[in-house]
Amino acid sequence: MSERVVVDFRTDPGRYKHWKLSYDGPVATLHMDVKEDGGLVPGYELKLNSYDLGVDIELYDAIQRLRFEHPEIGAVVLTSGKERVFCAGANIRMLSQSSHGWKVNFCKFTNETRSAIEDATTNSRQAWLAAVNGPCAGGGYELALATDRIIMADDGSTTVALPEVPLLAVLPGTGGLTRLVDKRRVRRDRADYFCTLEEGIKGPRAVEWRLVDEVVPRSRLAEATKQRAGELAARTDRPAGARGIALGPLERRIEGDRVVYAHVICAIDRGRGVAEITVAAPQVAPPSDAAGIHTAGTRFWPLAVARELDDLILYLRTNEEAIGLWVLRTSGAADAVEAHDRALLEHEADWLVREIRLYLKRTLKRLDVSSRSIFALIEPGSCFTGTLLELALAADRVFMLDGAREGDGRPAATVRLTGTNFGPYPTVNGLTRLESRFLDEPGRVDDLKGRIGEDLDAAAAAEAGLVTFTPDDIDWEDEVRIAIEERAAFSPDALTGMEASLRFGGPETLESKIFARLSAWQNWIFQRPNAVGPKGALKVYGTGERGDFDRRRV
Amino acid sequence: MSERVVVDFRTDPGRYKHWKLSYDGPVATLHMDVKEDGGLVPGYELKLNSYDLGVDIELYDAIQRLRFEHPEIGAVVLTSGKERVFCAGANIRMLSQSSHGWKVNFCKFTNETRSAIEDATTNSRQAWLAAVNGPCAGGGYELALATDRIIMADDGSTTVALPEVPLLAVLPGTGGLTRLVDKRRVRRDRADYFCTLEEGIKGPRAVEWRLVDEVVPRSRLAEATKQRAGELAARTDRPAGARGIALGPLERRIEGDRVVYAHVICAIDRGRGVAEITVAAPQVAPPSDAAGIHTAGTRFWPLAVARELDDLILYLRTNEEAIGLWVLRTSGAADAVEAHDRALLEHEADWLVREIRLYLKRTLKRLDVSSRSIFALIEPGSCFTGTLLELALAADRVFMLDGAREGDGRPAATVRLTGTNFGPYPTVNGLTRLESRFLDEPGRVDDLKGRIGEDLDAAAAAEAGLVTFTPDDIDWEDEVRIAIEERAAFSPDALTGMEASLRFGGPETLESKIFARLSAWQNWIFQRPNAVGPKGALKVYGTGERGDFDRRRV
Repeated sequence: MSERVVVDFRTDPGRYKHWKLSYDGPVATLHMDVKEDGGLVPGYELKLNSYDLGVDIELYDAIQRLRFEHPEIGAVVLTSGKERVFCAGANIRMLSQSSHGWKVNFCKFTNETRSAIEDATTNSRQAWLAAVNGPCAGGGYELALATDRIIMADDGSTTVALPEVPLLAVLPGTGGLTRLVDKRRVRRDRADYFCTLEEGIKGPRAVEWRLVDEVVPRSRLAEATKQRAGELAARTDRPAGARGIALGPLERRIEGDRVVYAHVICAIDRGRGVAEITVAAPQVAPPSDAAGIHTAGTRFWPLAVARELDDLILYLRTNEEAIGLWVLRTSGAADAVEAHDRALLEHEADWLVREIRLYLKRTLKRLDVSSRSIFALIEPGSCFTGTLLELALAADRVFMLDGAREGDGRPAATVRLTGTNFGPYPTVNGLTRLESRFLDEPGRVDDLKGRIGEDLDAAAAAEAGLVTFTPDDIDWEDEVRIAIEERAAFSPDALTGMEASLRFGGPETLESKIFARLSAWQNWIFQRPNAVGPKGALKVYGTGERGDFDRRRV
Repeated sequence: MSERVVVDFRTDPGRYKHWKLSYDGPVATLHMDVKEDGGLVPGYELKLNSYDLGVDIELYDAIQRLRFEHPEIGAVVLTSGKERVFCAGANIRMLSQSSHGWKVNFCKFTNETRSAIEDATTNSRQAWLAAVNGPCAGGGYELALATDRIIMADDGSTTVALPEVPLLAVLPGTGGLTRLVDKRRVRRDRADYFCTLEEGIKGPRAVEWRLVDEVVPRSRLAEATKQRAGELAARTDRPAGARGIALGPLERRIEGDRVVYAHVICAIDRGRGVAEITVAAPQVAPPSDAAGIHTAGTRFWPLAVARELDDLILYLRTNEEAIGLWVLRTSGAADAVEAHDRALLEHEADWLVREIRLYLKRTLKRLDVSSRSIFALIEPGSCFTGTLLELALAADRVFMLDGAREGDGRPAATVRLTGTNFGPYPTVNGLTRLESRFLDEPGRVDDLKGRIGEDLDAAAAAEAGLVTFTPDDIDWEDEVRIAIEERAAFSPDALTGMEASLRFGGPETLESKIFARLSAWQNWIFQRPNAVGPKGALKVYGTGERGDFDRRRV
């Protein structure tokens, strides 16, 4: 697969090739109906509702729109629009023709999208359920596993399966193994057996083994699904009578090596392998009440920034693989950021504000799991406050200039905590970034709560443990330049493994296990000759040959 | 490196090349003094107290002997016997000439040995401390991190460092990253900086950043170490006046494709890629009191079995890479096993019995983290009782023959729970194997407690969730044969990743993070051209060249 394809994550239902959305009161149904010749790049046909990145981009868009545009929807049914298959999983020919980096990046995005379904169910109170109306294999079953409830037709041909190990010599790459034992708590020996069965499991045994929640005769599937969806929808706290906000087109300009949004600008320096990303504070005050936020819609700065950052992260991850270091800056007035944070905190009970907070949470998590080094630079004119301070707390290192800069009239940089640093944005380990930072002294987080709203200069920020280094104007340029040059000189792979190990201390969650453990094993297997060598299972799939394996266990 | 070297893990202090043990009251000191020309295989010199598998085999032996042979020792000082260096870590030339499998297996064993140091400190109450008396880098620092307290000389040249990422393009492979953020709770941005510094960190900053516990002038290091060791030793509950038991030579015969111990026999079937392992019940009753156990020493069946299984696991892992499936059986009288379990439970306060239980725990954990498929076969004549039932609970699948076998006078197989299934043998996730098995219904574990001592036939065992499949005599042979043949046909790598994902559901610990996450990343990196390709950092190390990296982030 050529990696010169520039992938765009922006889409809308009018452009969907593979999904159909329909609405019935508080229940939406998302039909997967993948267009065989609608692949993102040439070289494969998307048969049997198999998917590639393009299919998943539309799914991701649908999940977002259901949350923001449809407050009235309390349950989402995921089902197949095809007669004879639910979903055959990720397209194998696509995988076998893809580079290692493409495969890994594809799995990361699909994993994030599955997690977004769980986040919608749990936190947006928009419960997803899967109506499995035909064979459901590999990534297809992993999609079902991301929903809250799996109803399967009992018709002799409908099964759930994770046939990756026996068929392809790779792992189910989208959280399947972890969700089996950790989410659905399938007994490990049963999970072991199940994961080696090409043909999968159907009927009552699938229920007994907790692989699905219920099976019903094919003729009753629609009715049973409707009933369950209705029950789930009835439990939501989403406001049936409210109006959603439209997620209009996201404006983005590519100007040479710059990617420019309304509030976020990214300048790519290919020589140094660096993306310099600057996030601007709002220029206006926030609306004075929730109604104003609804009116502002995507112009409300926190939502606008979430959308822009989200898109930029995806853009860079997919299209700029060789840019290994992201340098984060902010610019503008701390007061304006704090005022918007206050709006997010004061109106947290509002459904839209909740969605915006959740979107910011997911976007910051996307940063955490990106395989890029992240430095934050805090300089005069910056506004690392509250929500934007999370960018620094997500960074591998934070440099803060101590004092003013010669010839620069602006005062010395400060950072400011707001209430958003103490709850709304947990990282994948379930802790806030501050809690993750002070695993050694949890009490420090409480102490910092007492300093909300205070302007902390470099000395105070260092003392508080919020920043790594605080060079003064004399040392700043050299120190930062050397740190960036050194980072660029290290092995990208070693950095990826190191960052994945250091970023997630403390407790583990389903999500952290998927991103930090399962993904690491899958990445390893994706490199092994038994999967991707000339005789590897992924390469010979479909030729009638079986993989020729090196039998040595590692 | 030729993999035809047959590695023997059995040694004793009289044969040590690299370590010196000395004793001073309740404090032992283990001097690392690696013999440069004492490498396990040709091709490298063990300069600067760097180590290879042979050095670690001796360390492992020393840890075992300190526990069993020296009840009077309450603290162990780990220090260097060389003037100018503490330890430079794993030998780089050894790594660069090793196969992927050798590197991975080497890291697994060294990780287990570091965990054994922590187990000794916490559970044997034999606290380890490191007296860092010279540069301490990479695996050297990881060794220090495994101890309870790190005292470092403040002499201008002594530093701690994890230079793997900048120097070698791999990760610290022995738990260093995880122990930094999860054990010592070093702030993640500081850990990030530290792990990119070739030269490491020394003096007060090392203390401030929690990398070490204290620094003292070189001239005071011996004195300060003695004082700390004395303090730690004073806290132990080990009996100062007791006599240890000698860990005499472990008898093992290699007879063609059979590995034979007193109670454990392993028959290797190369055609099928299977090791058939049978563990025999004791032939004699246990001693009637703790004194009798002391007198029996290594003849006490639970200790004998622990030693034999431990050695066999290590032997197979290192010397029989292509044998991907271990099939576990037991033979003999359940009553005899139960009687020995009772002795282990009744005398748990006895220091030696505690050691034996801990050794069984570690040996069973070694099974859990082995990258081999494990099936247990429960047939007439078997004794899957208590401690031996843990073998089945450690297996990926358990087959139990339902009913008697035609022409076999023995009664149908049963399994029996004892108190040892409910506490003494947690797996790496901190739960017992029963708790790990019933994550979905924790109450089942309590229910099973009520059935201790009961003989459960196949139907009852299946009902209780203890076994996976219960074919009868008619189906047994085909079902087991097919399961074994199928397993042998799958990709060894995919199985390794699958098993590592399914075996450890539930909570995570330092140990599970090291074995299931950090190791996966390291394995991945160990495959990447940036580390091991012709221009990879590991390959060009020492040539004066720097690695030539593919800059794409994956």
